[in-house]
Order: sequence, then structure tokens, then C-alpha cells
Amino acid sequence: MAKDRDIPPPEDSFAGKDYQDPPPAPLIDPVELSKWSFYRALIAEFIATLLFLYITVQTVIGYKRSVAADPCGGVGILGIAWAFGGMIFVLVYCTAGISGGHINPAVTFGLFLARKVSLVRAFLYMVAQCAGAICGVGLAKGFQRAYYVRYGGAANELSVGYSKGTGLAAEIIGTFVLVYTVFSATDPKRVARDSHVPVLAPLPIGFAVFMVHLATIPITGTGINPARSLGAAVIYNHKKAWDDQWIFWVGPFVGAAIAAFYYQFILRAGAVKALGSFRSG
Amino acid sequence: MAKDRDIPPPEDSFAGKDYQDPPPAPLIDPVELSKWSFYRALIAEFIATLLFLYITVQTVIGYKRSVAADPCGGVGILGIAWAFGGMIFVLVYCTAGISGGHINPAVTFGLFLARKVSLVRAFLYMVAQCAGAICGVGLAKGFQRAYYVRYGGAANELSVGYSKGTGLAAEIIGTFVLVYTVFSATDPKRVARDSHVPVLAPLPIGFAVFMVHLATIPITGTGINPARSLGAAVIYNHKKAWDDQWIFWVGPFVGAAIAAFYYQFILRAGAVKALGSFRSG
Amino acid sequence: MAKDRDIPPPEDSFAGKDYQDPPPAPLIDPVELSKWSFYRALIAEFIATLLFLYITVQTVIGYKRSVAADPCGGVGILGIAWAFGGMIFVLVYCTAGISGGHINPAVTFGLFLARKVSLVRAFLYMVAQCAGAICGVGLAKGFQRAYYVRYGGAANELSVGYSKGTGLAAEIIGTFVLVYTVFSATDPKRVARDSHVPVLAPLPIGFAVFMVHLATIPITGTGINPARSLGAAVIYNHKKAWDDQWIFWVGPFVGAAIAAFYYQFILRAGAVKALGSFRSG
Amino acid sequence: MAKDRDIPPPEDSFAGKDYQDPPPAPLIDPVELSKWSFYRALIAEFIATLLFLYITVQTVIGYKRSVAADPCGGVGILGIAWAFGGMIFVLVYCTAGISGGHINPAVTFGLFLARKVSLVRAFLYMVAQCAGAICGVGLAKGFQRAYYVRYGGAANELSVGYSKGTGLAAEIIGTFVLVYTVFSATDPKRVARDSHVPVLAPLPIGFAVFMVHLATIPITGTGINPARSLGAAVIYNHKKAWDDQWIFWVGPFVGAAIAAFYYQFILRAGAVKALGSFRSG
Repeated sequence: MAKDRDIPPPEDSFAGKDYQDPPPAPLIDPVELSKWSFYRALIAEFIATLLFLYITVQTVIGYKRSVAADPCGGVGILGIAWAFGGMIFVLVYCTAGISGGHINPAVTFGLFLARKVSLVRAFLYMVAQCAGAICGVGLAKGFQRAYYVRYGGAANELSVGYSKGTGLAAEIIGTFVLVYTVFSATDPKRVARDSHVPVLAPLPIGFAVFMVHLATIPITGTGINPARSLGAAVIYNHKKAWDDQWIFWVGPFVGAAIAAFYYQFILRAGAVKALGSFRSG
Repeated sequence: MAKDRDIPPPEDSFAGKDYQDPPPAPLIDPVELSKWSFYRALIAEFIATLLFLYITVQTVIGYKRSVAADPCGGVGILGIAWAFGGMIFVLVYCTAGISGGHINPAVTFGLFLARKVSLVRAFLYMVAQCAGAICGVGLAKGFQRAYYVRYGGAANELSVGYSKGTGLAAEIIGTFVLVYTVFSATDPKRVARDSHVPVLAPLPIGFAVFMVHLATIPITGTGINPARSLGAAVIYNHKKAWDDQWIFWVGPFVGAAIAAFYYQFILRAGAVKALGSFRSG
Repeated sequence: MAKDRDIPPPEDSFAGKDYQDPPPAPLIDPVELSKWSFYRALIAEFIATLLFLYITVQTVIGYKRSVAADPCGGVGILGIAWAFGGMIFVLVYCTAGISGGHINPAVTFGLFLARKVSLVRAFLYMVAQCAGAICGVGLAKGFQRAYYVRYGGAANELSVGYSKGTGLAAEIIGTFVLVYTVFSATDPKRVARDSHVPVLAPLPIGFAVFMVHLATIPITGTGINPARSLGAAVIYNHKKAWDDQWIFWVGPFVGAAIAAFYYQFILRAGAVKALGSFRSG
Repeated sequence: MAKDRDIPPPEDSFAGKDYQDPPPAPLIDPVELSKWSFYRALIAEFIATLLFLYITVQTVIGYKRSVAADPCGGVGILGIAWAFGGMIFVLVYCTAGISGGHINPAVTFGLFLARKVSLVRAFLYMVAQCAGAICGVGLAKGFQRAYYVRYGGAANELSVGYSKGTGLAAEIIGTFVLVYTVFSATDPKRVARDSHVPVLAPLPIGFAVFMVHLATIPITGTGINPARSLGAAVIYNHKKAWDDQWIFWVGPFVGAAIAAFYYQFILRAGAVKALGSFRSG
């Protein structure tokens, strides 16, 4: 707060920046395909998304089993929101150094639009995330057997009383909050000015996920992660989950695109060029 | 704790400070009006306050809808307190480098009194925050339709059984806790002595908001942010919300003023000048 | 975890330490009495303890009012535990640089035994803390009027079904957890080796308070802070609260003394001298 | 997120690393046996595990006593999950500099497999942890008397409706999440590249424990810590707790071993040697 006055912001004129914008990632980078670290990153995304879905789906189904026996029992909707937000915090922390810690096709899509990852990397990350999500939900179903289906399979579906438009908008804004936080946390300008900020990055990212779940679990169950929605739909495999599935792909991708646009063109220097008439700074 | 003995505090005599108090901000700074970064800051305050109200009002109305169906369902009052505190944490983190991350006219007022922002900036921030809040609540109402009004519109009103004086005092003390935390987190002396502290700043600020909500939701619904109270009153537009509205402007502004006074004149060197008779240090 | 192998610990032989143990604080330090910073620290302790009690007592009484109307309403016992732990996090963060952020006579007592604060400072801190606590509870009572007394005044009392010995032991161990965390967070050796650790100090200290409340609210309401227990007893002024009051002074002071002993003689070099037969390191 | 592009990862070819892998710990290190710091570490593990079990078992039994009187009372299952996760956060923070902060034989086993602690140290840590856990549960039983047994002794047992295989798998995956987080937090490569990361280490480790409890309390009560399960079984001493005890040793040890393997051979350079055909990096 008021930091912009305590520490005078560096002039970000084009002549003398004190930070380096990394060059945009190429669409296809043949060098990265020859590196073990690339495949390691895919494995890390697969395992992280698997663990994310396993823990969160277990929490959801376990909560519903508890509540069926005792209306005040279980971890509550608040506990479910913590499970989603807390796992993102832990997993982004664990995988940030290996794969960048996306664990979400919408995040990957936003970073691809900002040219921070190559097209090939983005595509293969999404494949790894979706495969991991399917395996994670499958594992949770294996543990819960008949209860998994009886309690709704933790699938994302539009709740009764909300229109398709509302559900789509909820997913767009929710993903915007998440991807905006991701961009804020990884801004190279910020990293240069205050080199300690990235340390905290996984915590606000996890909290952003927690917040969105508090707000939109009653509306859509909260997707904001197409891999999470796909994984549950594949394993649950009920008509309603498949009918609404498009909402959980279109919404997050649109939200991520708006966040990328907002960050790159409004909050970063890009806008200066576009408008021309203002002194940069 | 006990830090004051482990690390001897620097002598803050006027001759040899180890930190720079930035000069007080001018009332009107024509230079800042010509910079893109100023308008970018206004946009960031608008969007952040919009997201703050959208997420928190959705959480409040969604909770009340859940509870109507199942008395133990929903995220609970605890979940609502987390939504307000957690969003402030996330949004201060995201916007601190762009606008200072106020998201609250009372915070802007306190920092203006301490001469950390110019009068023009303070006024325009408040306009952007109020406009953002109105849009955010409007968005939430669009999602919840008739339920928004049925469940009280997340408006700040004095609860039955509390006097106007109590409500006003609750808002004053609550905002004092928040603005005192903001001043503590952005103290240039602290920044100089322990350069890592600001990194954590958004977390205690978010927790301060969380704490005040735990304590005063039963009294006033907890305002401590005039933009939040105004946004809900405009969209809800019921007599009671408008009748009590002054409490949610006078209370936060008085609380912020006391916090600014406490910080600048009691805890900072200002007091030394006033008292004269003590050795500074 | 496993840090002791990743980063070889410095040899802490007496010849070549890489950190400075500050000299023990004198019992009476006439110089500190002539400094404004000393009185400022007393004011900061007074205000912080006042805010601590105000917020937490409001939370307790507000919760009990809510529950009387709706058994599933209010912030829950979990919300009360958060209020105590979260306020300590916020207030230690805010006052660490001014007064060391004790906000608790047991913490002051532990740091006095370790010779980190002078006798005069320790005594006057305790006076300021107790006065602040009484004012904070008084303020909360003023807001809640008859409800304050009806709902037990947030006083610490032994619950039905627990013996005095159990209550005393619960207070001893609970305060041990808190003061042990305080010593860990402010160890000068740790500060030297890893200069970033103190930044995080308020967070684990707040969590320690949160944890102890989760465990012992059902037994004693959780004191672990004599100022908190005294403030509620003075304002509530019922026989049972006064009869049990000694538990909330003897318990915390004994717990703090054991923590100081454990830290200084077992975990720090002090033990080396005592045992003599081991190579230091 | 996307860090791997913002900050180019150092080439981890064997020729020019920018970090030092510490040499593997010997199986038996006679030098460490002659140091006070070794015995101090054992004491710290003993006390930390004692406090861990004392606080968490008090929370569990106190919750069940509250719920017996009032179905919506007490801290809830969410509060229990916080108690386990929060105590690990506090205790890892407090003991990391003394013993490495294991507080869990499965963590010690994982770090032993990765050759980060010697065999002798690993064995004696486990003995200290188990002794501490037994004492901690015994203390909690002393406080709760007959209620301790009446409310199930906080023992880990397979819940009705889950097979032995499910319970074992839940323990394996849960411990994998924990030990994977521990390895991520203490990776020497990470420490070298971003020296501030370890500061945060106790927080994600505590959250990992919190998450696993949210997911698997309904299945096994959540062990993922053989000392915790043994301590409760010894003090509770009922047939069912002993019959299932093997699950809470085999599961965590297998999970820790898989995490060590995953970290050392998939995510670290070890895999490069194994595969040979990829350029390292």
C-alpha cells in the first residue's frame, strides 16, 4: 500500500529499464524438445494435477458421506474451498521450479497468450494436466466406490436456478481473478524491483483459488480449471456433466485471455505504445 | 518480539537517520496527471474494488441461499470473514506495485492525511473505488437476481439491538485496526531496517480485515470500507441501508484519521518534536 | 527439514561464533528511562493489548449471541480460535519494531528470565498490558451491554469436569508452546544464519496461539495470557472468574519459565558449559 | 508459475553446477555421536512430537466432548485438520534449525533413503519421535480421563466401509504428498537459485498435512506419521487400533520411499544418468 510513493518506481521508459523483459517464447522451440527438463516438467504437471484432483475429490466425497450421517459433520463447504486453494498453494510451491507450476490449462493458456511458454509446451502441458486429472479422479473413485457416483462425483455442473450465461460469466470472472494473480506474481518488473516477492507467489495464488471457491461453489461447483472439470466428467460420465462441460472450457479460457490482455496491455508498458500521447512512467 | 533488543534500533535523531522519509506529497501534483502510470493506477483501483465486491457479495448471498435450504450448509460466517480478508490479501498483493493497493477510501484518506498521496490522487482513487464497488455489487446482483434482494443485498446496516453510537464506534475501531496495520506495513523506517518486511505486508493487512469481520459482522455487517458500503447501498437501494450509510463513511474516516495521528505523532519521530524534553531514540 | 545437513551449522564454540549474543539486559537500565522510545513502547503495548481484547471479546460474545438465535450460526469455536491467533499475528507484526510485540505478560516474563528485557521494562510492560486488557474488555462490554454478562463475559474459568490441576497443566503447556515459538523466532543465532527468518516470526507465533486455543478452549477457555484473563475478570467481576484467576497467572508464568529454561539451557550453548564433557557444536 | 521462463534455469550439467549437492550422509557417522548438538536434536524431536500429539489429541477429544453436548459445537473436523497442519507448521519452524524438524518417522525415513541423514541418526530420531508421541498422548489422556477412551482415543483405525487396501493406499498417497513437499522445500538446487525459498518451507509443509487431513480423516483418521499412530495405539490400547497398526507403518514408509524415488530419480539429475540419451538441462 502506498508503496508507489515510498519507493519511487523506476522510470520504465524504453531507454533505461532496470529489468529485462524476457524475449517472447517461440511458438515451436525445437531445443526444448531435446531436453530432459522438458519431459520432467510434463511429468511434474501430470503428477501435480493428479494429486490435486485426488485430494480435492476425496475431500468433496468424504464431506458428503459425513453429512449424510450427521448434518453438522464433515469439513464443511469451507473445508472444501480450503482443499482446492490449499492444494494449489502446496503444488505451485513444489513444482514452480520444475514446470512453472501451472496445474491448470487456463493458466497455461494465459501464459501462452502472453508468450511466456511455447505453443508446443502449452499443448503438451494441457495434455499432461488432463491426463493427470482423469487419473486423480479415477483414483478417488476407486477409494469411494459406489459413494463416488451417489454423491455426484465432484463434477462441475450448473446448479438449479442459475442460467447458462450466469455460469459462464462466473467461470470467466473466477478465472480472471486467478490468472490476474498469476501474472502479478510473476511479473519480471516486479521481480527486478523487489526480488523477494516471488517467494510469496504460491500463497496469493492459492488464496485466489480459495476465494473463488467461496464465491462460486453454489453456482457451478467452481471449475476455473478445465482439467479439473474434464477429469470429473470423464470418470463420473453423466449426461448433465457432459452437457455443461463446454462452460468449464470456454469460461476459463476467456477469463484467462482477458487477464492476459488486462495485464499486458493495461497494466504493462504495452499500453503506452498504443496510446502514444502519454509520457511513459 | 524482543526484536528491539536483538537488533539495536537505529538512533533516529534528525542528524543521522539511516532511512529516508519521503517528502510529503503535494496537494496537487501536475506532473502525475501527465503520466500513464497515474491513469493505470486508477484503472487498477477500479478493477480491484470491483473484484473485491463481486467475490464477497457472491459469497454472502450464496451462503444465505445455502442456509435457507440447509441450516448447517454453506461456508458459514467464518467463510464470509475469510472472503473479505482473503480478497484484500490477494488484491493488495496484485495491485501494490501499480496503485499502492488501497481498494478502500478510508485507507486512501489515512494515507492522504499522512501526506503519502496527493489530494488529487486521493480524490480520484476514491471515485474509482466507489465506481468499482457499485459495478461489482451490480454484477453480483445480476448473477443472483431476486435472491440478491431477498437475502439483504449484503448491505451494511445496524443490527437490531445495537445503538447508532455502538455501530459508529465499531466502525471507528475496526478501521483503526486496518489502517494502523497499513501504516505499520509501509513505514519507511521499517523498510530500511528490515528490507524484507514489506514482502509480507499484504498478509497481515488481509488478516486485519479478517479479524475485524469476525468481531463486528454481528453488529454492522462490518463496513470499514466506505466504497463497499456505498456499492451495496446503491444496488440494494433500501431505506435502512441509506439511513445508516453515514455511519459507514464517518466511522471509517474517523478511524483512519486516528490511526494516521497515532502512527505519525505517537509512534514516529513527530512526537519528539512535540514533546521536546526527551532525548530522541 | 534436514536443514542441518544441507547447510552445515556453524561451529558454535566460544572462540569463533558467527553471531553475537547480545549482552544480558541489566535489571535496571536508567538510560532507557530517559528515552521517548521507551514510553512509546509502553503506549504501543497498551494499545495493542486493548485492541487484542476488544476484537477477541467482541468475537466471543457475538458468537454466543448468534448461537442463541441459530445453533449453526456465528463464526464457531474455530472462528474464535482464529480471532485470538490472527490478532496476535497482526499485532506482533505491527508492534515488533516499536516494543518487541509482547502483548502478553507471560511472554514478557519469559524474555525477562532470558535477560532480554530489563526488570523495569518487564514490569512496566506488564502494567501497560493489564491496563490495555481491562480497557479493551470494558470497551467490548460497553458495546454488548447486558449480553456481555449473560454470555459469560469471555472470562477464563475452569470448565465443569476438569480438576484445578488439569487446568493449571493446560495453561503451563499452552504457554510453553507459545513462548517456545517466540524464543525460536527471535534466536540471534538463527537471525545470523538465516537473516530472513524473523520476517516470518509473527506468523508462527500467531499460529501457536491459534493451535493452543483449538486444544484448550473446552478446558479453560484458554488463557496463556494473564493480561487477557485479568482484563476479563475485572470487567466481568464474578466470583468463579476470580476464584480461578490464580491458574491464569501461575500457569502462564510457569510455562514461560520452562520454555525459557528449555531454550537457554537445552537448545542453546548454555548446556555445553553445564555438561562440559561434550565437544561443543 | 512460468518461473522457468522468467529466470533461465541454470544448466545442471555435471561440469558447472551453481550449487553444491551435499555429499551423501554416511550410514554411521561416529563424529556426530560425540557432539552435544546430536543429543540436543534428539531432545528437540522428542519434545516437538510430544507437543504435536498433546495439542492434536486434546483437540480431537475436546471436539468430540463438545459435539456430544451440542451437534454444531466444537471446532469441527475442519478445526481438527487445522490442528494437525498448524502444529506441523509451528513445530517445523521451531525445530528446523536444531534437528531439521522431522517430527515424523516417515519424513526421517524418506530423508534417510535420500542419504540426507545417517542410519544411526534416522533410527534414534524415530525412537525419540515414538517416545515423544506416547508421552504426548499419555498427557492428553491424563487431562481427559474417561472421556479419552469413550471418544476413541484419537487412534488411527480403518473406518467402516473401507477395505484394508483402500486404507493402505490412502496412507501411501497422503505421505507421498507430505514427503514430496518436504523434498521440494529442502532441495539444495532450489536453495542456491532462490535463497529465500526455504524461509517459507514450514508453511507449505504444514499445509500439506492440513490438506491430507481434509481428504482422509473419513477413511483412516489420517496417519501419515507412524509415531502419531503408535502413540495413540499404545495409550488407547484397543484391539482394533493394534490390528490396523501395520497400515500406519507400511503406508507412510512406502509413500515416503516413492516420494524419495520420485524426487531423486525423476525430478533431479539422477535420471539423466539413467537415461543417458538426453542432454542434461
